[in-house]
Amino acid sequence: MIILGVDPGSRFTGYGVVEVDGSATTVIEYGVFALDGRGDHHLKLREIYDSVTDVIERCKPDECAIEMPIYGKNAQSMLKLGRAQAAAILAALNRDIPVMQYTPKEVKKSVTGNGAASKEQVWYMVRSLLAIRDSDETMGLDASDALAVVLCHSHRNDRVPSTKGRGGWEAFVRDNPGRVVSRERGSRGIEEDRKIGR
Amino acid sequence: MIILGVDPGSRFTGYGVVEVDGSATTVIEYGVFALDGRGDHHLKLREIYDSVTDVIERCKPDECAIEMPIYGKNAQSMLKLGRAQAAAILAALNRDIPVMQYTPKEVKKSVTGNGAASKEQVWYMVRSLLAIRDSDETMGLDASDALAVVLCHSHRNDRVPSTKGRGGWEAFVRDNPGRVVSRERGSRGIEEDRKIGR
Repeated sequence: MIILGVDPGSRFTGYGVVEVDGSATTVIEYGVFALDGRGDHHLKLREIYDSVTDVIERCKPDECAIEMPIYGKNAQSMLKLGRAQAAAILAALNRDIPVMQYTPKEVKKSVTGNGAASKEQVWYMVRSLLAIRDSDETMGLDASDALAVVLCHSHRNDRVPSTKGRGGWEAFVRDNPGRVVSRERGSRGIEEDRKIGR
Repeated sequence: MIILGVDPGSRFTGYGVVEVDGSATTVIEYGVFALDGRGDHHLKLREIYDSVTDVIERCKPDECAIEMPIYGKNAQSMLKLGRAQAAAILAALNRDIPVMQYTPKEVKKSVTGNGAASKEQVWYMVRSLLAIRDSDETMGLDASDALAVVLCHSHRNDRVPSTKGRGGWEAFVRDNPGRVVSRERGSRGIEEDRKIGR
């Protein structure tokens, strides 16, 4: 079962593709479509649509899981977000890939055990759960969010072990003291991504 | 020059196709895609995308004009609206039809001379300017909004005479006393449409 995860945004859209076989997971690819400087929003929409379509044709996913915030305060941001979401949804539906959606809270809770976890916590848990060894610079927060949606979708369908019963983020920090970089020490990759990201 | 106008909405999406040749206009077709009862929003998006694509393949428009509110107060409504807009935009772009967008205020001003005109005023002016003789029941407010976008787009490109210099809505009411149905007397078609519509 190959699962495509997408975290749509009007400035950055993250994606990740994971093959799930029982409890074994293999990361096929992940990345971010940077949409700044793409001119008007029509071109951005087409860029998201075409880029997601390219990933689908390359990786042949069986299912698509999309992170979909449905609540927000800023009406203009939600308008842009809705457009980006629709572009990702339609790219999958037009290739007959079933689409499931999860709220950020559901994704965070599934991956870290805490629905209010930070993006950095999600990032660490995704790297741990999927055994990603790439440098900090390679995987930004948008890509890790997309991979987290894949994990959330898999957990819902009991395909891979979830963090449930493992103590979530706190247990991870306790069990992996050397792998947690404190905010003070910083991680250039993450900090840069946060600045240019969301 | 054949122009497709679309007024996207998550419950009702209106469309209209008009051939413009100098100052002559010929209405090719218009209608409304009713999306209520279509299940989840994924199906609604696909319905908008597929329906607009069908119209494009049937009528072969050269350009597409879309009414796009960009300001709103309710974040949840704007999220849904953004998705519906994206479905219409992508349907056109994926068939290589150039897309132009106009705000409701621009459309109303272009058609009635008043940027704050009511939907009923737009409806009357669209019927007058395009010489539509169908009964009130046939053309609802969503379809007339879509045809109004076509007129707005045409006026911007000086293809058909605008209401400019003709006195707009007030002159129309003065010149056509018999064609204006007062709100008290009501028009079943319009009133029904308003109730089920927006």
